[in-house]
Amino acid sequence: MREVCLGLDIGGTNCRLGIVDRAGEILREDSLQTGSFATFPDLVTGLAAGCRRLLEAEALDALAIGIGAPNGNAHRGTIAHAPNLPWKGELPLARDLGAALGAPAWLTNDANAAALGEMLYGGGRGRRDLLVVTLGTGLGSGFIVDGRLVYGHSSFAGELGHVIVEPGGRACGCGRQGCLERYVSVTALVAIARERLATDAAASSLRGLPDEKLTGAAIHDAARSGDEFALALFDEMGARLGLALANAAAITSPEKIFLYGGLAGAGEILLGPTRASFERNLLANFAGITIEVSELQGRNGALLGAAALAFHGLDSNDA
Amino acid sequence: MREVCLGLDIGGTNCRLGIVDRAGEILREDSLQTGSFATFPDLVTGLAAGCRRLLEAEALDALAIGIGAPNGNAHRGTIAHAPNLPWKGELPLARDLGAALGAPAWLTNDANAAALGEMLYGGGRGRRDLLVVTLGTGLGSGFIVDGRLVYGHSSFAGELGHVIVEPGGRACGCGRQGCLERYVSVTALVAIARERLATDAAASSLRGLPDEKLTGAAIHDAARSGDEFALALFDEMGARLGLALANAAAITSPEKIFLYGGLAGAGEILLGPTRASFERNLLANFAGITIEVSELQGRNGALLGAAALAFHGLDSNDA
Repeated sequence: MREVCLGLDIGGTNCRLGIVDRAGEILREDSLQTGSFATFPDLVTGLAAGCRRLLEAEALDALAIGIGAPNGNAHRGTIAHAPNLPWKGELPLARDLGAALGAPAWLTNDANAAALGEMLYGGGRGRRDLLVVTLGTGLGSGFIVDGRLVYGHSSFAGELGHVIVEPGGRACGCGRQGCLERYVSVTALVAIARERLATDAAASSLRGLPDEKLTGAAIHDAARSGDEFALALFDEMGARLGLALANAAAITSPEKIFLYGGLAGAGEILLGPTRASFERNLLANFAGITIEVSELQGRNGALLGAAALAFHGLDSNDA
Repeated sequence: MREVCLGLDIGGTNCRLGIVDRAGEILREDSLQTGSFATFPDLVTGLAAGCRRLLEAEALDALAIGIGAPNGNAHRGTIAHAPNLPWKGELPLARDLGAALGAPAWLTNDANAAALGEMLYGGGRGRRDLLVVTLGTGLGSGFIVDGRLVYGHSSFAGELGHVIVEPGGRACGCGRQGCLERYVSVTALVAIARERLATDAAASSLRGLPDEKLTGAAIHDAARSGDEFALALFDEMGARLGLALANAAAITSPEKIFLYGGLAGAGEILLGPTRASFERNLLANFAGITIEVSELQGRNGALLGAAALAFHGLDSNDA
């Protein structure tokens, strides 16, 4: 029988589930509305039923289950107090879904799942030291060292978005100031653009846009059209990101760095200044590290990452 | 027969060697002058003879050999172009000494050896996620994640001293500017004290000392005597170090952090401001991490670390 795992991506709006094989082919997938599960037991029942439907349609059994979720605690297999999900407290989703489906289950946060997805199915195939940075509403990261995810004592390692890059700088939702994700994320891009349009007289096609239209996509479009104001915002983000990546590389020494998610879609507009800053700030010992857009970009990366977690768990014998 | 390993600490002035057991007891040790070995083959022959003398005197065989050395490349078992050692090029010391003594041999840099020593013999016993920072002429670091040293793709991971904390800041020997070790190390302490005494009129018992007497020890003595100028230097160092440790903790999430080496001897004068800054800058997810002086401080830490590398290598089956 074909060896497959289930991958689940738990989001604030939708829960995606799919059957994935070792080569990263998604055989069948589905999406369920997160809001349709009033309680955590409802969620478990609903996800288990959804998974069974997929497996029955393919006449397959799943070897294991991988779950990517916000605020995932990998050591405990729980979702811990996720502000953007409707169920409160610490939720033992890996245990309960594993029991419902009779298969081993692992859970981790989205960025860690993306990192494993890159190693198993993306540009990190065959590599053992990677850094994957997810650039969306926030900035997440998954560090892989010698083929294994870095979880650390708390299981919350890899919080590159909350490295303080500007002491006393922009206020962060975490209660501190100057975190990297306040400078490098879609949220940061929009916030900084808005502030600067209000205080700066530079010409820009973004000027006069109503607030709700000043989005990351609009700023990206303006930059692609050559808008100097918008390009300068990407240049600054790239300079910040490149320095932060060079500093992170000094700690874990990856072979390759991948950018994934909304902002990574800006391609060279962000990659160019990021690489320039990275090279300028990198210690010579680490020369040769590449920064690329994730090969999962534009594919169903979150689902593939969750499935990669399941295969990785099986292969590590780490249940 | 008692299970022992050989530990070797290769330094610019002396090479120390010792027989160490699993409990961290040094049964017998010796020190050879580095300058007495004109060539790299002389070094290998001399170290092998020194090791044999120790083993014969104890009538023991060594299970394995661990070597701590500046610019150690753990993946290759070599010392790579160490500026402070007399032999040039890339030196396959682990291979050659292992062959001479007929035992498996591992080599790593001093800070990594210190980290393994802390985990096997020091305050990190039984812990799997540690960060050890060595504060001497420079600032070195060894990161242990899930019981294993972080080497990364290059094998040079763990260069916390070369994280850029002040873009455009103090010039570093690495060719860049603003590296942490230009602000936190004995060298930095002395350099900053000297500059500030020249440009600042504050009263200090250090004022008027001839250059050769303005040492780290003298500044530490002044601080212990309540000299405000000297205390302010330690406060600033602690503030920098605490922030850098909080940022590093966001990446690997250690359970405990240990400080080792010259500056760690300052005890609370440095630990106080370091902890205050660390707590202020730490993401709440990581609360509970302690910062302590290494338990190997004042013991023969470099030798113990090298022996720990040997036992760690045996236990990891990682030859």
